[in-house]
Amino acid sequence: MKDEIDQEEVAKRRGIYFPAFSIYGGSSGLFDYGPYGSLIKDNIQNIWKEMIFSEGPVAMLDSPALTLQNVLKASGHYDRFFDYSVQCKSCNTKFRADDIVESLGLKVILDRDYLNNIIREKGIKCPKCGGEFDDVRIHKLMFQVDQGENMDPLFLRPETAQGIFVNFKEFYRFFREKLPFAVIQIGRGYRNEISPRRGLYRLREFNMMECEVFLDPKDEKWVKEPYDDIKIHYLTNKDEDLFMTPKEAYEKGIIKSQPLAYFTGFAFKFYSRIGLDVNKIRFRQHKKEDLSHYSSDTWDAEALTDIGWIEITGIAHRGTYDVGRHIEYSARDLYAQRLVEPHKEKKIELEPNFKEIKRDFGDKAGEIIKAINNGNSTVFLNNKQISLEKYIIRKEVEVTVDRESFVPIVVEPSFGLDRIIYALLDHNFDKREENGYVYLKIPPQVAPFIAGVYPLFPKEDLEKVAKDIYQKLLNDGFKVIYDDSGSIGKRYARYDEVGVPFGITVDYDTLKDSTVTIRFRDTTEQIRVSINDLTSKLRELLWTGKKN
Amino acid sequence: MKDEIDQEEVAKRRGIYFPAFSIYGGSSGLFDYGPYGSLIKDNIQNIWKEMIFSEGPVAMLDSPALTLQNVLKASGHYDRFFDYSVQCKSCNTKFRADDIVESLGLKVILDRDYLNNIIREKGIKCPKCGGEFDDVRIHKLMFQVDQGENMDPLFLRPETAQGIFVNFKEFYRFFREKLPFAVIQIGRGYRNEISPRRGLYRLREFNMMECEVFLDPKDEKWVKEPYDDIKIHYLTNKDEDLFMTPKEAYEKGIIKSQPLAYFTGFAFKFYSRIGLDVNKIRFRQHKKEDLSHYSSDTWDAEALTDIGWIEITGIAHRGTYDVGRHIEYSARDLYAQRLVEPHKEKKIELEPNFKEIKRDFGDKAGEIIKAINNGNSTVFLNNKQISLEKYIIRKEVEVTVDRESFVPIVVEPSFGLDRIIYALLDHNFDKREENGYVYLKIPPQVAPFIAGVYPLFPKEDLEKVAKDIYQKLLNDGFKVIYDDSGSIGKRYARYDEVGVPFGITVDYDTLKDSTVTIRFRDTTEQIRVSINDLTSKLRELLWTGKKN
Repeated sequence: MKDEIDQEEVAKRRGIYFPAFSIYGGSSGLFDYGPYGSLIKDNIQNIWKEMIFSEGPVAMLDSPALTLQNVLKASGHYDRFFDYSVQCKSCNTKFRADDIVESLGLKVILDRDYLNNIIREKGIKCPKCGGEFDDVRIHKLMFQVDQGENMDPLFLRPETAQGIFVNFKEFYRFFREKLPFAVIQIGRGYRNEISPRRGLYRLREFNMMECEVFLDPKDEKWVKEPYDDIKIHYLTNKDEDLFMTPKEAYEKGIIKSQPLAYFTGFAFKFYSRIGLDVNKIRFRQHKKEDLSHYSSDTWDAEALTDIGWIEITGIAHRGTYDVGRHIEYSARDLYAQRLVEPHKEKKIELEPNFKEIKRDFGDKAGEIIKAINNGNSTVFLNNKQISLEKYIIRKEVEVTVDRESFVPIVVEPSFGLDRIIYALLDHNFDKREENGYVYLKIPPQVAPFIAGVYPLFPKEDLEKVAKDIYQKLLNDGFKVIYDDSGSIGKRYARYDEVGVPFGITVDYDTLKDSTVTIRFRDTTEQIRVSINDLTSKLRELLWTGKKN
Repeated sequence: MKDEIDQEEVAKRRGIYFPAFSIYGGSSGLFDYGPYGSLIKDNIQNIWKEMIFSEGPVAMLDSPALTLQNVLKASGHYDRFFDYSVQCKSCNTKFRADDIVESLGLKVILDRDYLNNIIREKGIKCPKCGGEFDDVRIHKLMFQVDQGENMDPLFLRPETAQGIFVNFKEFYRFFREKLPFAVIQIGRGYRNEISPRRGLYRLREFNMMECEVFLDPKDEKWVKEPYDDIKIHYLTNKDEDLFMTPKEAYEKGIIKSQPLAYFTGFAFKFYSRIGLDVNKIRFRQHKKEDLSHYSSDTWDAEALTDIGWIEITGIAHRGTYDVGRHIEYSARDLYAQRLVEPHKEKKIELEPNFKEIKRDFGDKAGEIIKAINNGNSTVFLNNKQISLEKYIIRKEVEVTVDRESFVPIVVEPSFGLDRIIYALLDHNFDKREENGYVYLKIPPQVAPFIAGVYPLFPKEDLEKVAKDIYQKLLNDGFKVIYDDSGSIGKRYARYDEVGVPFGITVDYDTLKDSTVTIRFRDTTEQIRVSINDLTSKLRELLWTGKKN
């Protein structure tokens, strides 16, 4: 982006995105996508869905944002999802303690005592008013939602992923018990950030496109091979900048997991398709000390923007952590199975003691036998709970085993939609050399409207034809806009600024020969097209934005 | 729906929708859309968006679910969005007081004292355990979300509409200050229901597709005329069942508002397109006593299902209430303007008293003059607040006025997506007479997958060709599924049950002549198609579901 262009200013002025509830003073970290932004966001989501579904074994989930406490205890968020905060005693402003320490160039260790001591020792003061800081505290990042008395609170999900993990078995069945497969979810996530800032960069309610890839740890491969036709900038945990294809990165052991390597390529192709400047994209490997304890390798896709390199996607190898934790906390069978060489194994089998049951239960014997065969150890009879222990015979038997259970591992490419939009605007706002006008050079498929339809002058006969064309294009399923106010140059400029790639102008020649001008946003070139060919021409132009 | 088919059972067993977080015992009123349901939902949303955008002056908003308290004070939800509850003293179960009273055939008045008295007088007991009821209480329906100390709580929005109303001015500018226009939002809404029940019917987190149509009260017309090509069942507030076109309903004064009449037709066409049985749809007019105080007329679209007539869409005339309240509470200019006959009006103009200002402020005079011209009545100078009153000269002037401000009225068609899905499944599950198998006869455009690809037998050569076809169709952008497990009859039945309209079967003839069988879900007919023609054939078949 040209330095002089202030993304947030343009976004707000033109209704791409802006602070939510601003007529009531707004609320930090909450943003609206307006008439242009909401369509851009929609288009990006649709392209992502189209690309990920074409991978093959991919299914979708749509789960609530309100989440049970126990789910988040299992995931670790309930205990570990917090920041350290410090509050100024004078002006009451809250900061992230690690931000304060880091901003002074001091080493950050995420430990309460350490942060507290260093703020005391160095006499760090409030950067806003110079006041003294209170003690470092724990600031929980999940929003808690009360359900009423006598009930555990709910929480707004910090990520969409948990909905997928708790449903692993649903999807395992859906995929006819075959790995690998992936489950996606697009939706909102929530974090009660201490200091939301920088527009879309750190939101309290944000949009995610998550993909959880479930794999057999003994056959850790996605269904497609890592790409060999794109060169990617990899920044390793040894601070090496490498430029190579995902295939090379995998074969050279830079990325040890095949699906991890694959999805760096997938992400790169996605960025390219939606119009990010791929020369400003790198994949940065987490250093050992920054990795979550369960992750053996994580690569963040980062985009270079006016506020530096920002993480737009995390691609993490999560091991067996997610499904394993839910097995532990829910005590449910969330295992996958693989075929093994058939072999004999000893096993304890439970059998009802028919004689004893018949004697003690008479005509209720059938129910008791059924309960034992179902694996129950107690049963309710006449409102009394009865232990079945003494009616069960345990037998050691030898069985032939041809499958074994295992916990699937997860590779997670998680796309931060808001930050992708931030980077997209950053990479695509440009200024015309000749007149300094701003235009947004995003691909037609991402653009909020494919075209504007404009009568050259405010004359009834031109307006009528323009409106007919507009309605015809709407009926053909195009998103188009009609505008008859201001000079034609002003109208071109108006829609250039929000990325509308084509302008269709109706003039006096149109009335004679039924042709219109199509004017191109990026080059300002113009061509003449027959009205009858408009639909097919626009369809063709829409796809010139498709890069893969 | 055939009586014997239990929608919830099929939906759960087949992953259309099911209780969320069930491995942790679930939480009432929270549901997941699984691999099939999430795609069906997506398709319905896309069709709705396509239809509504083709109306013309329609824009979209995407605003946060977390909502400022002041927004909801203005909207009235903060004070008025509650139910009356009664709790059983013995088993602690909570009920809606009005449900309890209504279920005994008694008259319901939504008044706490009335409900309390009638429960006492009639000696109504807990329907679950026979216990005695505690006093009737107010149960707030909005979920409250804490942000931390010293801050007002946030709330989860009860509807997506408020995000639109507070942004009226954004969209007014976007539409170049011309009415009418409509703003849509698709997203989640939240209600802390006392007793969520019946699967998708009463959720605590639900999906809405809302459309707010802004109109000039002096020219209350949508851009298109009410339809004349569909006959609709209208049930008036006088309990008359009428069958007529929206145009007739408007012309005969059954529906007095043109846009209200228009959108009954729009909704009807939408239902028809997605595959609801339009013979089981009626539009029921609210009785005078059931209307919100600000609404002059409201029509609910209702669908007949196994649980009776259920509201799936509300189409309300909301008058100037929404924008008016936000003008009042935010003290912002959210007015629209219309041209009027130019005329003279007297007006007070403010002018800086240059002499006095120069004398008192010297070289700061410029700042003071600027403040007055900006309309400020005080100014901060050297950290002191100074009243500008005595530096202002008030002059009465005569100006020519050619426009006047007004509060726009709103007509709101609000679609409840979950209930539409409930009704859709209800109307489309059917059983084959010959074998009792269940199939879901939804249109191809709504179906989760357009086709399944099946090798006839588990033979490597057939599987290879089937997989190639599957991948080719994925690459062409179709949602298809591959399945090679079980007999071909079982596979057809499996995907019939979740609405996949076409089955593509690869057999030994395929290897000879490169043709496959396409088998139709609804008729079980089969045709033979060349592999090369599959894409165009599927594209054609996809659109046979389009009814308008």
